Amino acid sequence: MSAKNLTKIILPEELMPKYWYNVQADMPNPLAPGLNPQTKKPLTPSDLEPIFARELIAQEVSTERFIEIPAEVKELYKQYRPSPLYRAHGLEKALDTSCRIYYKYEGISPVGSHKLNSALPQVFFNKIQGIKRLTTETGAGQWGTALSLAGKLFGLEIMVYMVKVSFTQKPYRRSIMELYGGKCIPSPSTLTASGREALEKNPETPGTLAIAISEAVEDATSRTDTNYSLGSVLNHVCLHQTIIGQEVKKQMEMVDDYPDIVIGCCGGGSNFAGIALPFIPDKLAGKNIRLIGVEPTACPSMTKGVFAYDYGDSVGLTPMLKMYTLGHDFTPSGIHAGGLRYHGGSPIISQLYHDGLLEAVAVKQNPSFAAAMLFAQSEGIVPAPESSHAIRTAIDEALKAKESGEVKSIVFNLSGHGQLDLYSYDRYLSGETEDVEFSQKDLQKSLESLPKI
Amino acid sequence: MSAKNLTKIILPEELMPKYWYNVQADMPNPLAPGLNPQTKKPLTPSDLEPIFARELIAQEVSTERFIEIPAEVKELYKQYRPSPLYRAHGLEKALDTSCRIYYKYEGISPVGSHKLNSALPQVFFNKIQGIKRLTTETGAGQWGTALSLAGKLFGLEIMVYMVKVSFTQKPYRRSIMELYGGKCIPSPSTLTASGREALEKNPETPGTLAIAISEAVEDATSRTDTNYSLGSVLNHVCLHQTIIGQEVKKQMEMVDDYPDIVIGCCGGGSNFAGIALPFIPDKLAGKNIRLIGVEPTACPSMTKGVFAYDYGDSVGLTPMLKMYTLGHDFTPSGIHAGGLRYHGGSPIISQLYHDGLLEAVAVKQNPSFAAAMLFAQSEGIVPAPESSHAIRTAIDEALKAKESGEVKSIVFNLSGHGQLDLYSYDRYLSGETEDVEFSQKDLQKSLESLPKI
Repeated sequence: MSAKNLTKIILPEELMPKYWYNVQADMPNPLAPGLNPQTKKPLTPSDLEPIFARELIAQEVSTERFIEIPAEVKELYKQYRPSPLYRAHGLEKALDTSCRIYYKYEGISPVGSHKLNSALPQVFFNKIQGIKRLTTETGAGQWGTALSLAGKLFGLEIMVYMVKVSFTQKPYRRSIMELYGGKCIPSPSTLTASGREALEKNPETPGTLAIAISEAVEDATSRTDTNYSLGSVLNHVCLHQTIIGQEVKKQMEMVDDYPDIVIGCCGGGSNFAGIALPFIPDKLAGKNIRLIGVEPTACPSMTKGVFAYDYGDSVGLTPMLKMYTLGHDFTPSGIHAGGLRYHGGSPIISQLYHDGLLEAVAVKQNPSFAAAMLFAQSEGIVPAPESSHAIRTAIDEALKAKESGEVKSIVFNLSGHGQLDLYSYDRYLSGETEDVEFSQKDLQKSLESLPKI
Repeated sequence: MSAKNLTKIILPEELMPKYWYNVQADMPNPLAPGLNPQTKKPLTPSDLEPIFARELIAQEVSTERFIEIPAEVKELYKQYRPSPLYRAHGLEKALDTSCRIYYKYEGISPVGSHKLNSALPQVFFNKIQGIKRLTTETGAGQWGTALSLAGKLFGLEIMVYMVKVSFTQKPYRRSIMELYGGKCIPSPSTLTASGREALEKNPETPGTLAIAISEAVEDATSRTDTNYSLGSVLNHVCLHQTIIGQEVKKQMEMVDDYPDIVIGCCGGGSNFAGIALPFIPDKLAGKNIRLIGVEPTACPSMTKGVFAYDYGDSVGLTPMLKMYTLGHDFTPSGIHAGGLRYHGGSPIISQLYHDGLLEAVAVKQNPSFAAAMLFAQSEGIVPAPESSHAIRTAIDEALKAKESGEVKSIVFNLSGHGQLDLYSYDRYLSGETEDVEFSQKDLQKSLESLPKI
């Protein structure tokens, strides 16, 4: 295939997708239903209505293949979408590879990551229902930042519970959320019962996404004008992110190319879902394409976890979802890719991985940073530590192909930039980052905490 | 004029300008020659060759209207150019204005500012001449970051003297320069005689661009493999930046519009030159267009300085240039827009301002931050404190037009993003930034230091 030699592949604004793609229409095995945490029976919409907008609940269970993007959301998407697809000429040269490497750059969004793709519709659907305030959790801070901006643009108040270790590592994340009018506090906090309980158990806890979710859900439940908003994991979040992969398909067509391998880092799964799911119909139709999710060895839910029902949070306030999980009690070590420190994953990604349609690999922290450095020094862009996991795997695949004499077309999602993660790079450059693994003993103990169904 | 309603106006890669525009071909009054600081006689190329590449010296005095961009530089420009021109729909709505407001977004460059436009050719022209190492100064850090990346891409070593107050305000600027392989130390340093002298005079000095320039020039002069590189002020730097305004002209044509007002913040003058100079031929041909440079009230070289020969640095190592200046002894207070803390300005901008072809206004720090907040909350992008000065004036012009019932087309240069300036926003949000003015007494004293010609 002769790929045209552009550096930036720009899709015209008028060709921006008008629909989100819903993979639930095409999954060979449907999702196991979410379960009510009290009754352990399949969820009904009324279980979710206390904290989610009705339209989002409908999207959660929809099996319509395409769901229209509202005009108000499209208008705001246009500030940064379609995002560019880059040909990584500099990185290819640095690797001396014949592979064609592309990256979809979601860091172009004003908040610096793909998270705005779901923050805008989530705030919009809550707004039209009369909700005045949204609570959420954030790991690395990318989601909290996106929701703060979306809240400001649509006029909703935003309250962000930020995992404490990230709050400390990324001091300016709070600043940017406040600049956008959001409120951000470190979790566990003393504002909620779940936070106080976590602090009692372990006053020195670095926090986890699971605890922060408990706090945000508890806050939302306690006020009628307030809903809760999640930046990953759920089906409607993955749905909103599919605009990424749909654009990639059109952009690859523009240069007469088609990917052999598509790569995304994978924590809760939203950015990997975003770039990978629109390729599922091709794969089901027999296309030879590999879709790889990359997780950190410190928190390897797909590669070392089990496929089982588990809670999304630490204290069991959320529905039980069937997903690859390390157990909701699992506390990953404080790696710098805070956005990947989640015990579970997206039910959609989990099911498709279980069915062999997606692959998963785990990579260590320092090799990820090394990949990020090579990328920054050859392509210029400083990647977020999360996205660096995808870069590591893209580089590894290119090097493997070089060794075997193959020429591959490799696309990865550069889900965010790392301009607010320079503290982490500083630690890496000073030799102070570790190749942390999980402890097998902790994992065993945490898996014992899985709810009995 | 009916402007098309696009949000992002994207120029196709193949329409990226192939030439820099040299306004010296069109200036009604030619530039006064630079003077040798020892002999006070007009500079000859051999005065400059110890620290500048020959090709850059030739550009400095060229009167050719168009100078070709080398293929190697064009290739790297394509990583981020043409940069988008945005229609500020969100800001227009927030201001309730009928004016059409556009911003050229140079923060799209991987280093986050327009500075890479000149860093790439400067490193390239030094490289082909066999130079191995470049020294420079940096204020806000944008220039040092750009030169560090350009150095890495072309394989040259980079040494950055960073004004101490900015070094402290922006702790992660050093990190990003090091990530790109550059070396960065606070100025005044003890590495150079000029640095030691400045420290002796005032051990508590916040530093100035003028002192940092002295250090970088002294370092470059002392080694034969090393040249010096300047990120603003000089003619060849303004030349490289004209790619900005040339793109803007084409982009405005794409939406059938033409600006009534073009605005850029102005310290050394390179980003203002970049967006404004390509409009000079139109203005000379009778077009009714206003070109406004915006400086901080804390360092108002055009609005309060004198048009005279002065040194570019603090101790008189650089050539004397005829420019608007506050005197090379002037120490501006430590405002957060570190890139605008320069006592002088570009000779080209100065001459055109003197000739009435450009206008200048000065704005205060807090109103600039207020404009930046409104912009971030309506357009999403967090602007650099420097660029916020341009936003302030764009907003003021739109509000004036609203009052007088006029409808204007306003374009400003968003020269960089502020993701590394969140410390400054933090201070502003905490009410800890001041509307600093210069002291008339200091200015008088500093003007007495002007060299006698």
